[in-house]
Amino acid sequence: MKIALYQGPGCLNNVQAGFAHLHTQASKAKAQGANLLILPEMYLSGYNVGAEAALAQALPQSGLTAARETARALNIALVFGYPERVGENVANAAVLIGPDGQILLNYRKSHLFGDLDRRMFKQTGADFPIAELGGVKIGLLICYDIEFPEPARRLALAGADVILVPTAQMEPYEQVARHVIPTRAYENQVYIAYANHSGAENGLGYIGLSSICGPNGAVLAMAGTDETMLFADTDPAHHAAVRQADPFFKDRRPELYGPLSH
Amino acid sequence: MKIALYQGPGCLNNVQAGFAHLHTQASKAKAQGANLLILPEMYLSGYNVGAEAALAQALPQSGLTAARETARALNIALVFGYPERVGENVANAAVLIGPDGQILLNYRKSHLFGDLDRRMFKQTGADFPIAELGGVKIGLLICYDIEFPEPARRLALAGADVILVPTAQMEPYEQVARHVIPTRAYENQVYIAYANHSGAENGLGYIGLSSICGPNGAVLAMAGTDETMLFADTDPAHHAAVRQADPFFKDRRPELYGPLSH
Repeated sequence: MKIALYQGPGCLNNVQAGFAHLHTQASKAKAQGANLLILPEMYLSGYNVGAEAALAQALPQSGLTAARETARALNIALVFGYPERVGENVANAAVLIGPDGQILLNYRKSHLFGDLDRRMFKQTGADFPIAELGGVKIGLLICYDIEFPEPARRLALAGADVILVPTAQMEPYEQVARHVIPTRAYENQVYIAYANHSGAENGLGYIGLSSICGPNGAVLAMAGTDETMLFADTDPAHHAAVRQADPFFKDRRPELYGPLSH
Repeated sequence: MKIALYQGPGCLNNVQAGFAHLHTQASKAKAQGANLLILPEMYLSGYNVGAEAALAQALPQSGLTAARETARALNIALVFGYPERVGENVANAAVLIGPDGQILLNYRKSHLFGDLDRRMFKQTGADFPIAELGGVKIGLLICYDIEFPEPARRLALAGADVILVPTAQMEPYEQVARHVIPTRAYENQVYIAYANHSGAENGLGYIGLSSICGPNGAVLAMAGTDETMLFADTDPAHHAAVRQADPFFKDRRPELYGPLSH
């Protein structure tokens, strides 16, 4: 599977322009042979928009028709963040749309970050679903989720091969981009794509530094601070070799880990 | 607390020479004002010695008198790895000796690494104890333990401020030294000292790259590949500020982490 990752600004407070921008990026990714394109957290509306704008732009899964048409028309899978309308509330959600236009996963950020998230999002996720795409098992997390070891671990224990992480990572959290992402890939023996915004948004400065890491923790592609598209291939033979060389999951001692869930 | 870290070869298959070498290193650390010296995994005997030599050199906690005398004479705490005799078996153990010569912690490696460990060590640890030293709560892990997120998480949840990790890290595991150690420090908001061997030992090439990391994941001191001693100070005010700025432990959702212990 060839993964494309878009790092850049979205279309602030303009979901319709967001769908058009998404189509443009998906076309570019497809032209390079990508099977899947991942974009940042709250890509469709902008992330740092505040509670009122988040609610005003929020849309239910059924409102993603334009993105599903893009996926189907271009025959490419899409992952992006959006404000999901859930009753009177908003969830910070990410969706995986298959190349046939079907919604394969809809994940709601389970770990909210500070007042910034809590002002906008009342509804949080409580599960870590996995979908299969072309024989590859995929899980989604969003931004702050990946800073905790437990959510990625849950996905890996459930069989994920690839974890896709739309994010909106700002200064001064470079440690996450530089160390945490390769570590999550290494310790869980999964591919990770971490797609960030670049530039500033209503005064919030994003650090860029999006990356795609391999299951041995190697950084396969990494962005600087500007708008860009990254590419990397997953390789089942390499993946199997990594898992065989270091049997982390056989060597775990789950009987000792009970206190983590108390 | 001023932490000193010794990276270097021990005294292969010569525990008595090991005690003398330990005294020399402790004197050097003390001369620089250190309150605690950490040394590598299986420091006292060498790590890559094989099952027969490990058993022949193994000693019970009561056999650590010479190290306890060094600690008391120099008024410095010591942490080092040694082959602990447990009945007819050997545990890969690490001990924390207080500056008064008392044994404050004795930890047995809970995650054995490959055939290398399993040939030598039959007895594994099943708990993650913590001791207090000068108001600082300390936990121990050994080498492979730190590659799993769960053991360090257990120590942090139990209140550890500092995690001390004697190791014997060999090629090609640079990812651990470069990314995993800063990540464990960052995600758990603890100081970590990771003390490795340098050079080669019975054909096993160690990577060095020992480090001391702060609770925001910053690398405070890092070794190259040669024998050396590192120093870093813990700072309670900085530590408190880090924990206040990012309330990771309030933001965890332990109700979602049950599958990690099944």
